[in-house]
Formats: sequence, C-alpha cells, structure tokens
Amino acid sequence: MLFYAIDIIGTFAFAISGVLVAMQKRMDPFGIFIIAFVTAVGGGTLRDVLIGRTPVGWMNDLNYVHAIGLAVVFAVIFRKKLNRLRKSLFLFDTIGLGVFTIIGVEKGISADLHPIICIALGTMSASFGGVIRDILCNEIPVIFRKEIYATACLVGGATFFALKYLGLEEDLIYIFTAAMVISIRLVVVKFKIQLPTIYQA
Amino acid sequence: MLFYAIDIIGTFAFAISGVLVAMQKRMDPFGIFIIAFVTAVGGGTLRDVLIGRTPVGWMNDLNYVHAIGLAVVFAVIFRKKLNRLRKSLFLFDTIGLGVFTIIGVEKGISADLHPIICIALGTMSASFGGVIRDILCNEIPVIFRKEIYATACLVGGATFFALKYLGLEEDLIYIFTAAMVISIRLVVVKFKIQLPTIYQA
Amino acid sequence: MLFYAIDIIGTFAFAISGVLVAMQKRMDPFGIFIIAFVTAVGGGTLRDVLIGRTPVGWMNDLNYVHAIGLAVVFAVIFRKKLNRLRKSLFLFDTIGLGVFTIIGVEKGISADLHPIICIALGTMSASFGGVIRDILCNEIPVIFRKEIYATACLVGGATFFALKYLGLEEDLIYIFTAAMVISIRLVVVKFKIQLPTIYQA
Repeated sequence: MLFYAIDIIGTFAFAISGVLVAMQKRMDPFGIFIIAFVTAVGGGTLRDVLIGRTPVGWMNDLNYVHAIGLAVVFAVIFRKKLNRLRKSLFLFDTIGLGVFTIIGVEKGISADLHPIICIALGTMSASFGGVIRDILCNEIPVIFRKEIYATACLVGGATFFALKYLGLEEDLIYIFTAAMVISIRLVVVKFKIQLPTIYQA
Repeated sequence: MLFYAIDIIGTFAFAISGVLVAMQKRMDPFGIFIIAFVTAVGGGTLRDVLIGRTPVGWMNDLNYVHAIGLAVVFAVIFRKKLNRLRKSLFLFDTIGLGVFTIIGVEKGISADLHPIICIALGTMSASFGGVIRDILCNEIPVIFRKEIYATACLVGGATFFALKYLGLEEDLIYIFTAAMVISIRLVVVKFKIQLPTIYQA
Repeated sequence: MLFYAIDIIGTFAFAISGVLVAMQKRMDPFGIFIIAFVTAVGGGTLRDVLIGRTPVGWMNDLNYVHAIGLAVVFAVIFRKKLNRLRKSLFLFDTIGLGVFTIIGVEKGISADLHPIICIALGTMSASFGGVIRDILCNEIPVIFRKEIYATACLVGGATFFALKYLGLEEDLIYIFTAAMVISIRLVVVKFKIQLPTIYQA
C-alpha cells in the first residue's frame, strides 16, 4: 500500500520533469501531456512490451493516467514557481527511481528471467522513460552522456539480488535496494559526479 | 466493406504524406518506403503492440503493404505534380484520421479497456504514425508543437463514447465520430487555428 | 551449431559498430553499452515484439549479453587500434548481416506469416538495430539515406523463398541466401555504390 503510494508519487514527479523539458521545447498542451506521459510510464511500458505483459501496465490502472494529468495541470499552472520546489521535486524523482527499479526487478522475477535480465529490466523501468522523452524532444538521451542515473539503478538491482541471496526478508530487501539507489543518486548530484565520456582519439 | 475501403484509402493517403517528408530529407528509395510505411501503419502498430494483439495488424493483411507500395510508386513518379493534388490528398488524409480513430477505439473496446484508454488508443492509431515518421526524420513531432491533429481524434473518441452511452446504433456512432474528427480538422486548417505553446518564462 | 556461433560473432561485430558510433558522440560507458546493445539486438528485438515472441530473444539467452559486454570492453580498450581491424570487423558485420536475415525470415515462417512479411522481418532483424542506434544518437538513420544495406537483406530474403520454392534443401538455402546478402554488400562497398536520393524539385 505504501509502496503503491510511492509508485504514484514517483509517477507524478517523473511527469513533472517531462513537463519541464517539453516547455523548454515550446510544445503545445498535447505535446506537453505526451512528453509527461512517456517520461512517467515509458520505461515501464517498454519493459512490459519486451516481456509480453500486455495490455501494458497503465492501461489497467487509471491512477497512473490521473497522476500524470494532475502533474501536467499543476506544472503548467505553477510553472513560474517550480524553481522554488526544485528540491522537493528532485527528492520525489529520486524516490521514484528507487521504487521503479524494484518494480522492474520484480516483474522480471515473475517472468522467470535471469537475475542479470531482471536488473536490466529494473534499470529500464526507472530510466528509459527519460530516454524516450529525450528522443521525442530530438536530443541525445542525457543519461547516455553524463548523468549517473541508470548506474544507480544497476547497482540497486545488484543489491537486490545480493540481499536475496543472503536470505533477507522481502521488506528489508526493498528498503535496502531503494536506499542504495537513492543514496547513490543523492551523492552524485550533491558532489556533481559524472561518468567520464569515452571517445576515439 | 465501405469502412475497410476507407481504411485502405486512408493508409494510401498517410503513406503519401510520409513520402513527401522523406523526399524533403533527401532519402533513398528504401528510406522513402520505410517512412511511408511507418507513417501509414506506425500508429496502429504501436497500438497493437501495447495491447498485445500480435502479430501486428499489417502482418496479416497484405492489402496495407500493397496500398503503401502503390502510394510510394505513385508519389515518387508524380512528385512534381503532387502540389496540384494537395487538396485531394488532404481530404483523404483527413478521412483516414477519422476512420483510424474509430478503428483504434474499437480495438480498445475488444481488449476490454476503459473508455479513457480506448480514446487514447484511437488517438494513437490515427496520429502516432506521424510521430514515428518525424522521429525517424530527426524532427520534433509536428503534432507536439502546433498542429491540431491529435486533438481532433481525442474529441472524436469522446464523441464515440458519448453517443454509445446515449444508446445510438453502431453505424450512426461511426458516422458521427468520423464527422466530428473530420469537421474539427477541416475547421482548424481552414482558419489556421493552432494550439498555443507553453513555456517557462 | 556453426550457425549459432556465427550468430554470436555477428552480434559481437554489430556491437562494436555501435561502440564506434557512441564514442563519436562522446557518450559515457553506460551510453556506449546501450548503443552497442541496441545495435546488436535491436532489430531482432523489434521483430520479436511485432510478432509477439516475448520475452524477446536476448532475455532467454545470456550469450548475447556476454558477447555484447565483451565487444564493449574490447572496443573501448583497443579503440585506438580498431582502424587496423577495420577489414575484419567489416567482414564479421557482413557475415552477421547474412545470418541475421536468415534468422528473421525463419522466425516469420514459424509464425506462419506470408513470404513478403517474412522477408520484411529478415530485413528488420538484420538492419533495424542500426536504425535504432542512429535514432538514439540523434541522426537520420544512415540506411535511409544512402547505404545499400537493407537492400542486400531484401534480395537475400527473396532468394531464400525462390530457392525454397525450387525445393532446395534447407542447408543449401541458408548458404545461398547468406552468400547473396554477403556478396551484394561486398560489391556495393567495394565499388562505393549508393542508392540515389529522391527529392521534390
């Protein structure tokens, strides 16, 4: 129940980050809604399609659609005041990152997939909404260039299976996994750590 | 039967609009065919994948492939004369928009989905081929920026369920839904109405 | 067995071509891995999703993941020496093109699809990983503009069904199909043949 509530709050936070990017690109209301939508549920949708869980998740639970609609209205109306909320939004986004990773890993486990694939699905759930957002906005995805974002999910996913292997209870696994993702993200943003880029001389 | 014929004519018209964009980008024949293809059936393909109706539609009915192939040959050969046909093409495209919306809504209903999701599927069927076309052409999708295109489908989809709720016969629902989509589109193009863009000051 | 080995080698070669493009775009290690991944398995993944074979192929066979991981490590470490390997890499890539085409055609046949759709699936398997790579790198896909790449797969797919119609044994069909794809690709690269671009005057 708490978990589901965090999931919806994470969806809301992801959608707002989508609205912000769409407004920078001067989109119209329809474009803003679609960008918010794919940012929020794009990663989970891709995951569901690849493992064959269809109709995809948001089609069977309108709360996601409502959370995204609310986020769009909220973000458009308060667009000049969102800067003051930057810290809260970042926090929600980061919590969402942790929760989405766990959800993705769990879907992989239900589909009987190998832990490595489950970790990939967790990372995809949490970070590929942003990839689709950037592609629709005609940008190279920011998480491919420098942001340590997906890396936090990868480490979180690995933590999940390490703890599971150690025989921890599910609740504790969830808490430690989310804490790992959230801590990494907080640390890298606080200290402005980026992955190095690699190029051919 | 008439419905199916209009579906194929709409596919043809959508494919031609794809060819025109691909030629502007100076693509080769293979690229032109692929852009025509995704413009024509990309929206319906995305819909089928998301609801799990696979193999996707065009794989089971070669008439779509034939209509697109014909459209490509036609548009390439008469590329210098297409301007004169602009009005007819626009009309076919607009009729296609109405029909594709209805088809998408119906697929959602067969999959037992909520009316809001069905309306989303109708809009996706009719307008996301153009989104995929624009992404493959390295542009921000035009319907996210200003074109009132998807909005016509959204209103059409809502009309569909309003009339269904009122207990109208299926045939009448189809006619009024298509008429709604087509009228909105004709009016906005005639009077050059655009959605406002929203940005952060 | 040999076929499977070639499949894995082709995956390795495709992944390296992805790494090279990602490094040109100055991506970070995560971005490089993802681009390598989609270049190598993106075409087959799209095919599996469209025909409904889920979970998609690479989720059930970790050898693909390993081959891609190895390719990334190899290509990043030896990035300054890859020019010397250009010919070997091109050869592997070309052999992969032939094998991936055959795999795609066969998946279409197992799904009971029409030969034309099977040829499309073969072409998609072999050449759409590069399309997704280019989109993620914010480029118009190179195979839509000039490269004769997909065309080789199309001709290869047609060869497959022509030989099948003539009643040849499966092994021979495979050999001749791959040989056709590989020969066309070698000839067009050797003589720098490109498809003409078409545009509206």
